[in-house]
Amino acid sequence: MMPSTGQASVPPGFRFHPTDEELLYYYLRKKVSYEAIDLDVIREVDLNKLEPWDLKDKCKIGSGPQNDWYFFSHKDKKYPTGTRTNRATTAGFWKATGRDKAIHLSNSKRIGMRKTLVFYTGRAPHGQKTDWIMHEYRLEDDTTEIQTTSL
Amino acid sequence: MMPSTGQASVPPGFRFHPTDEELLYYYLRKKVSYEAIDLDVIREVDLNKLEPWDLKDKCKIGSGPQNDWYFFSHKDKKYPTGTRTNRATTAGFWKATGRDKAIHLSNSKRIGMRKTLVFYTGRAPHGQKTDWIMHEYRLEDDTTEIQTTSL
Repeated sequence: MMPSTGQASVPPGFRFHPTDEELLYYYLRKKVSYEAIDLDVIREVDLNKLEPWDLKDKCKIGSGPQNDWYFFSHKDKKYPTGTRTNRATTAGFWKATGRDKAIHLSNSKRIGMRKTLVFYTGRAPHGQKTDWIMHEYRLEDDTTEIQTTSL
Repeated sequence: MMPSTGQASVPPGFRFHPTDEELLYYYLRKKVSYEAIDLDVIREVDLNKLEPWDLKDKCKIGSGPQNDWYFFSHKDKKYPTGTRTNRATTAGFWKATGRDKAIHLSNSKRIGMRKTLVFYTGRAPHGQKTDWIMHEYRLEDDTTEIQTTSL
């Protein structure tokens, strides 16, 4: 068995390019049910404590060039009683853009949703838009998320 | 350890997209020296007995969509005494195109060459050009090759 740590070793030549379906139905589903993941390459991070550019090192997989970084993160509520999510970091904040996209299995069963967010430096409602994009995946009826960031 | 067969299992989300350097310096170098390969996904085939489209199934890696197929193959000399290579199959033949490209390590050391070939159906010197491209990698001072085909 391969070591089951965040720094699992990936054989040369392999790149992590999962489909939405693989992220949701394999990685996130196993994560929320505490099942073992074959090659456990997705790290847990606290998204409020990391800037997007910090994720490059933190979420490195293997030795190849990488333009997407994957991580698990718990949603942090802005107010204990509210439903709005606090997506601020020290340098800026993540802001949702566009519509959430439904993710279906090939047999057309809906398994979850994908939200797209953009990183702004500064403080809302001001702030300077950046090229950092995040996709946030959630399973139907669950609040644990898997997230990918790309520049 | 992962099973060391041609059908090694690849965790979900991983795709085999090796660089020229990884193909030569890791996979081919280990192959010719009979060293173990971490996740032995590259099969040995007899290129004269397989048409390019047969390689799709034969050289499948994991379950994801694939546009490149990788294999090891021994060069078959056209005539026992000659240096020309027999690259004919039942349906056609592979013909070299362009110049061979030198492959360097990042420290600029030259480790091998890459030849590009195109598949023609029919018999040389006639034949109908197809969209099948093969890259043939050879280490410096060695005759064993790794080959990748793509459509």
